[in-house]
Amino acid sequence: MSLQTGADLRAIRERKPLVHQITNYVVMNETANATLALGALPVMAHAPQEVEEMAAVAGALVLNIGTLSEHWVEAMLLAGQAANAGSVPIVLDPVGAGATRYRTMTAQRLLDGLDIAVVRGNAAEIATLAGREAQIRGVESVGAEAGPELAQAAARALGCVASVTGPVDHISDGEGQYAVANGHELLGTVTGTGCMATAITGCFLAVRAGAPLEAATEALVAFGVAAEDAAGEARGPGTFHAALYDALAGLDPEGLDARAKVE
Amino acid sequence: MSLQTGADLRAIRERKPLVHQITNYVVMNETANATLALGALPVMAHAPQEVEEMAAVAGALVLNIGTLSEHWVEAMLLAGQAANAGSVPIVLDPVGAGATRYRTMTAQRLLDGLDIAVVRGNAAEIATLAGREAQIRGVESVGAEAGPELAQAAARALGCVASVTGPVDHISDGEGQYAVANGHELLGTVTGTGCMATAITGCFLAVRAGAPLEAATEALVAFGVAAEDAAGEARGPGTFHAALYDALAGLDPEGLDARAKVE
Amino acid sequence: MSLQTGADLRAIRERKPLVHQITNYVVMNETANATLALGALPVMAHAPQEVEEMAAVAGALVLNIGTLSEHWVEAMLLAGQAANAGSVPIVLDPVGAGATRYRTMTAQRLLDGLDIAVVRGNAAEIATLAGREAQIRGVESVGAEAGPELAQAAARALGCVASVTGPVDHISDGEGQYAVANGHELLGTVTGTGCMATAITGCFLAVRAGAPLEAATEALVAFGVAAEDAAGEARGPGTFHAALYDALAGLDPEGLDARAKVE
Repeated sequence: MSLQTGADLRAIRERKPLVHQITNYVVMNETANATLALGALPVMAHAPQEVEEMAAVAGALVLNIGTLSEHWVEAMLLAGQAANAGSVPIVLDPVGAGATRYRTMTAQRLLDGLDIAVVRGNAAEIATLAGREAQIRGVESVGAEAGPELAQAAARALGCVASVTGPVDHISDGEGQYAVANGHELLGTVTGTGCMATAITGCFLAVRAGAPLEAATEALVAFGVAAEDAAGEARGPGTFHAALYDALAGLDPEGLDARAKVE
Repeated sequence: MSLQTGADLRAIRERKPLVHQITNYVVMNETANATLALGALPVMAHAPQEVEEMAAVAGALVLNIGTLSEHWVEAMLLAGQAANAGSVPIVLDPVGAGATRYRTMTAQRLLDGLDIAVVRGNAAEIATLAGREAQIRGVESVGAEAGPELAQAAARALGCVASVTGPVDHISDGEGQYAVANGHELLGTVTGTGCMATAITGCFLAVRAGAPLEAATEALVAFGVAAEDAAGEARGPGTFHAALYDALAGLDPEGLDARAKVE
Repeated sequence: MSLQTGADLRAIRERKPLVHQITNYVVMNETANATLALGALPVMAHAPQEVEEMAAVAGALVLNIGTLSEHWVEAMLLAGQAANAGSVPIVLDPVGAGATRYRTMTAQRLLDGLDIAVVRGNAAEIATLAGREAQIRGVESVGAEAGPELAQAAARALGCVASVTGPVDHISDGEGQYAVANGHELLGTVTGTGCMATAITGCFLAVRAGAPLEAATEALVAFGVAAEDAAGEARGPGTFHAALYDALAGLDPEGLDARAKVE
């Protein structure tokens, strides 16, 4: 397998996969708009009466526990089982795992009960799930930066691709490993950019379900390049946020692979 | 009755009607800001303890099933009954009708249980409710475009004004019929612009409750003209989104009727 | 005690306090981004299983009843009790108090059951809680403007700092009193700017818990100065909204006290 971010972005725009998202209240508009700007079709649905039907016809399912509560967790499990039954790939964003016992336990419950393709989180969230000590303040990782070792260890412990984002992102399936240096520090000044990275991971998974390590890596390349473009238009977090959607919509598949800072 | 978009926009800004919205999590901020930018006052309230009191004093009630669940549907019915009792006009946005059985059934339940003035949706949603075959992917209409015939048939089947938006919008009460060609393709790149059109329909209904066909048409003229203005300031979906609120606030009642592309 | 807005802003940026917010669906993204742009760390969490744990480690707790329902009110009480037990200061935003009986009663229930440091609202909301007649349309104060007398009377009646925002803001603890004339009329054209003011009050409380009158005043100075800066970049509500985050992030602690319009 190799990376083909430009070709897969082109596939997203041609096929317009449906990306079903059960996510937190804070970022719903933002992840929907990021999905749409990239070229896929977002849908938010969390009622137990409809999540199975929706997940079954989706190209990917995004689960995000940023503002969780019991009914939502049950909906995530229902949707996830339907996704698994239909071979729809799932990406999990364990927002705040490590910050409260309820978040940590819920993330573990989803990982235990479902076949998850990719877990995308910050260093503290992924370290917590891998059974390590981690420092998190609310939903912000404040401990040591992630290295390639954490991604690999987490992938082995959790049995799925671990995508650990930070100044440099590390993605591993326990064997293969990528590091992505694309991105911009302004991403840290806007809430929900991690959640957007997860939604975009869902978009790439939808067109490359058979290669989750590559899909997760390509998503961070595309999102990082868009952030670089947006930073050039920004005067701060607010204008960066608006420019980020412009940049996602303006991503040129042609030059994308040449701009990837991947090792 | 005739169209008088400028005069009715002036009335909205003078009277500042309260527009009570029970809508989806994804677009709450966006529809509130669109309502406010146009010149009306939005309020979001969904608790069964207060929806009747709020709806009874509103100028219009907006019901939107974009992220529905049972408690919210019950609140919509309670609010809708109070609105009907007080002759407060209701606009319904059947987001995703046709995508899952639960959404289709809920939209029908609201249409059956309440006296709805206007249903505003895309071609697939409206066709579904009119009992036709339709293609929808998530909340996006992917089938054939709407024509005037669909709006008329839906209005007759549902017993209310049908407002079908698309590249050209078609609005009908079963007898009279308008087509609105205002708007811009960037509207399709931002999530919730359909929901904004519905909220703005509520604003116009609040000042012209006796003429729902004209109110629904005027709303799409005003929103379409604002989109045309915003497109001139935009470099993509993100800057278009910000410019759309500027444009709604900047709409000039004076020249508005001359800019209407209505047949 | 005296005002030291610049020094306290510097403290926020150095310590990055966690500001736990149980707030309404409409503004979650906006108050999180305002908190982050200022320099603190927002976290949204409302599940009964985790609110106590989260509030206990926060620097401040923000309670906002803008889209309340029974489960959320119960979570607010749980979180508030944990905050009180840990001496974490609480700011309450009684959105829409006076508009429905349920909102008024809920605000009173929170004031009765918890030790609140600051109540931040518009003139109608605060007057309602102080037992006076008030005119509110949805969540918008449409009656007479607030004067210094209302803030003082409310502070005495409620036993906490009253922060009444409007064209001129009035803040009182029942004895001391400040008036803040910073700000810009564009704030009234964007939904949730009051809620942002409340969130920023939480940020200042987190670094100055012992002086809630000064913390509440400094928050309105900082937010008002940012609004003045943002207005210079804006063409309307949408671009103002984006520029507001830029301005919050760009606030210069050095010149901040000189720009305060405080009496």
